[in-house]
Amino acid sequence: MIRDLIIKNRSYRRFHEEVDIKLDTLKELIDLARLSASARNAQPLKYILSCQPQKNSLIFQHLAWAGYLTDWEGPGEGERPSAYIIILGDTKISQFFGCDHGIAAQSILLGATEKGLGGCMIASIERQGLRQYLEIPPRYKILLVLALGKPKETVIIETIGPSGDTKYWRDSKGIHHVPKHALDDIILD
Amino acid sequence: MIRDLIIKNRSYRRFHEEVDIKLDTLKELIDLARLSASARNAQPLKYILSCQPQKNSLIFQHLAWAGYLTDWEGPGEGERPSAYIIILGDTKISQFFGCDHGIAAQSILLGATEKGLGGCMIASIERQGLRQYLEIPPRYKILLVLALGKPKETVIIETIGPSGDTKYWRDSKGIHHVPKHALDDIILD
Repeated sequence: MIRDLIIKNRSYRRFHEEVDIKLDTLKELIDLARLSASARNAQPLKYILSCQPQKNSLIFQHLAWAGYLTDWEGPGEGERPSAYIIILGDTKISQFFGCDHGIAAQSILLGATEKGLGGCMIASIERQGLRQYLEIPPRYKILLVLALGKPKETVIIETIGPSGDTKYWRDSKGIHHVPKHALDDIILD
Repeated sequence: MIRDLIIKNRSYRRFHEEVDIKLDTLKELIDLARLSASARNAQPLKYILSCQPQKNSLIFQHLAWAGYLTDWEGPGEGERPSAYIIILGDTKISQFFGCDHGIAAQSILLGATEKGLGGCMIASIERQGLRQYLEIPPRYKILLVLALGKPKETVIIETIGPSGDTKYWRDSKGIHHVPKHALDDIILD
């Protein structure tokens, strides 16, 4: 059931870094994005893949993790992603990417979840540095970075409390709590 | 397999209009969006649902269909969507919706596909008119309309030819052809 997969597909930020992800696995995930919808079928998205420690480390340095967990600087060594997919917008194809990268990212992460992996869509990227280090031509806009790995944390969905606060938080046992609106609160009519 | 579902989930524009979609079905689909990722977990998306002929007809009048099929004005009577989901961005929550609506739309359409339904994400919307007729307050930005129904057409994915043309097209038998980039052409390295 797609519902089970969607529930299992949480934003994970700590991983069993020792579990490798192969390049072929990343390609299978990109193929899911390739087969997904694109506005006007323009298909302006391109992808950079990384599953090697050195390149992973370089990408890691340019990402901001979990803005609401202000006393956490991101996953420590051994708990970092085993792979990354950088989603680019090719401005030679379109100047307008709409929500294509959201569609693609969801397909990729659902595919990763089915494989027993998990990840996180990261838009808080030090783009200039990442572009420079990976030599990404100016033609490509950096839209999202997907961090991927075998999840090493528990994430629980909760209903938003009376305060209305949507900030996720981590309890003393390291369990990650994510408050979500109730269904009735997001349907207007 | 999620891959099978993603392949089956094409953009459908002609439907068995006589097949009703119940409000509860739409709510189940919205719940899939609710459980999906949202940037900073801000959850700024709200939804308007429609599965009644009069409201459907009103929404239909404000949509543009299949821009590349210039001699086709959209589905005729009896082949129109049985339901719609309008995805709104609540500007009281955020001014920035990123690709949240892409994530949500993909979850919804995958859920619809699993139920034997199908649909199309439509961004070409006569927004001012739709807002007026549905009395959508200025607070909400109209991001996408999802048309939903029981598909009544065959959609085939093909690899893009030497011309590089990404325009979808319909053959003499009414089969809809969608050219997609080859996998190797969208991976940079």
